[in-house]
Amino acid sequence: MLTLDDALRLLDAARTASTQIGVPMAFAVMDPGGHLLALARMDGAPWVTSDVAQGKAWTSAAYGVPSAAQKDKMSPMPNFATAITAMTHGRFTPQTGAVPVYRDGVLVGGLGGSGGTGDQDEAACAAAVEACGLSTTA
Amino acid sequence: MLTLDDALRLLDAARTASTQIGVPMAFAVMDPGGHLLALARMDGAPWVTSDVAQGKAWTSAAYGVPSAAQKDKMSPMPNFATAITAMTHGRFTPQTGAVPVYRDGVLVGGLGGSGGTGDQDEAACAAAVEACGLSTTA
Amino acid sequence: MLTLDDALRLLDAARTASTQIGVPMAFAVMDPGGHLLALARMDGAPWVTSDVAQGKAWTSAAYGVPSAAQKDKMSPMPNFATAITAMTHGRFTPQTGAVPVYRDGVLVGGLGGSGGTGDQDEAACAAAVEACGLSTTA
Amino acid sequence: MLTLDDALRLLDAARTASTQIGVPMAFAVMDPGGHLLALARMDGAPWVTSDVAQGKAWTSAAYGVPSAAQKDKMSPMPNFATAITAMTHGRFTPQTGAVPVYRDGVLVGGLGGSGGTGDQDEAACAAAVEACGLSTTA
Repeated sequence: MLTLDDALRLLDAARTASTQIGVPMAFAVMDPGGHLLALARMDGAPWVTSDVAQGKAWTSAAYGVPSAAQKDKMSPMPNFATAITAMTHGRFTPQTGAVPVYRDGVLVGGLGGSGGTGDQDEAACAAAVEACGLSTTA
Repeated sequence: MLTLDDALRLLDAARTASTQIGVPMAFAVMDPGGHLLALARMDGAPWVTSDVAQGKAWTSAAYGVPSAAQKDKMSPMPNFATAITAMTHGRFTPQTGAVPVYRDGVLVGGLGGSGGTGDQDEAACAAAVEACGLSTTA
Repeated sequence: MLTLDDALRLLDAARTASTQIGVPMAFAVMDPGGHLLALARMDGAPWVTSDVAQGKAWTSAAYGVPSAAQKDKMSPMPNFATAITAMTHGRFTPQTGAVPVYRDGVLVGGLGGSGGTGDQDEAACAAAVEACGLSTTA
Repeated sequence: MLTLDDALRLLDAARTASTQIGVPMAFAVMDPGGHLLALARMDGAPWVTSDVAQGKAWTSAAYGVPSAAQKDKMSPMPNFATAITAMTHGRFTPQTGAVPVYRDGVLVGGLGGSGGTGDQDEAACAAAVEACGLSTTA
């Protein structure tokens, strides 16, 4: 599992990556149960990014894959995507911008971002996971 | 920030623009946090326009752009759009017809309309912002 | 029915009454179908008052009585009150602060306020209805 | 307004206070519009505390008072409390454990905690606000 110190280090590393990319973002760390562990919204990021980052992080934590994989999978099945989003009360967010977090091959959570393009959000999250000595794959 | 007098002037100017366009509309003014400041639904506009105008105004206030920009951005990402709409409890409305409101370069709210075509709604809102000495861009 | 001019006159009179009472409030005018016709939130009133005023106005428009009557009626039936609130998606608000609006004995809408005590909210609304030559009773 | 650095300092101070009290908690910082700025859930705190802390912080940010004040106010009005909770999609949380955050007399957000008793949660939040040179009153 992720400790709060782990989560705060992830947020700190994600902020550093976001600053290098040049776009303010919000980042959310979810535990493997899809519950919020820590969140930070950078100055200048619209407040709605706090919600979107959570949705993406939830999606990676729930499935153990980058949220982009769910975007691709759901692309030809919009009605199914809508159903999962509705049944999870708006949590399921099949859009690029989050990665799962693995430690020693075990899924320990998800890290999601919002504020840049989907690719920028994912790049910042992936960089943060690596910087913390964790992995985005099992 | 917008005072109530500002908001009522915006609504009054939007009604004037709507009358010139020739279609009754509802108009909503949101504060920068996405909360309703003032609303007016013109005689002859269907009651659901009050809800739609709020959704569009919310979208402009939340992102600081015309809601049409979110329509364009979300066009290839319907599942992502559905997720944001769901996570915001139906507020996110990626459709033409609202503009952000800036004063001295600061985002102070959003003005959204409904009742005409999206383009007519947006034209009325943009005209109102200009008539009040405010701006739709930073 | 209420025209938008009627609704704006009600809001204007309610603001005057609120100023005399000395507490900033938000006011909402609902049509007889429970749909928002006009709203104004005074400077200094918390943004949540925009939502609460709508709920009270809805309650008066839906039942044709002051929302305080629903407060009294529902007091011994909390589970029933909760059910109506839930089935109406948070609209039913059994609390003092709104009055129905009658013209020539016909229910034409509801006027609700929020920001002061319930009694202050209701007093401002009732004063506004009277000032506009309308009635709070059939 | 609160910067993210302000928010992270508040969370850090709240964790220190929580450790002194001896109970792990989650803490949430809301901006004045009721949108999440930062959150941290301490090791050992149940995951649901992340949601509860947000609800309390929202309540303090929305009304500019300790959430305990809304608990006291709503105690004789359970049906009204239910209505506000429903209309705000579960955000309104009239329970002890959060304080508003003022800077130079201006409401800049809310800090809420969950995990201990309501009084412990509020004590940790109030201590954090003071430690950061901010105030819980205007």
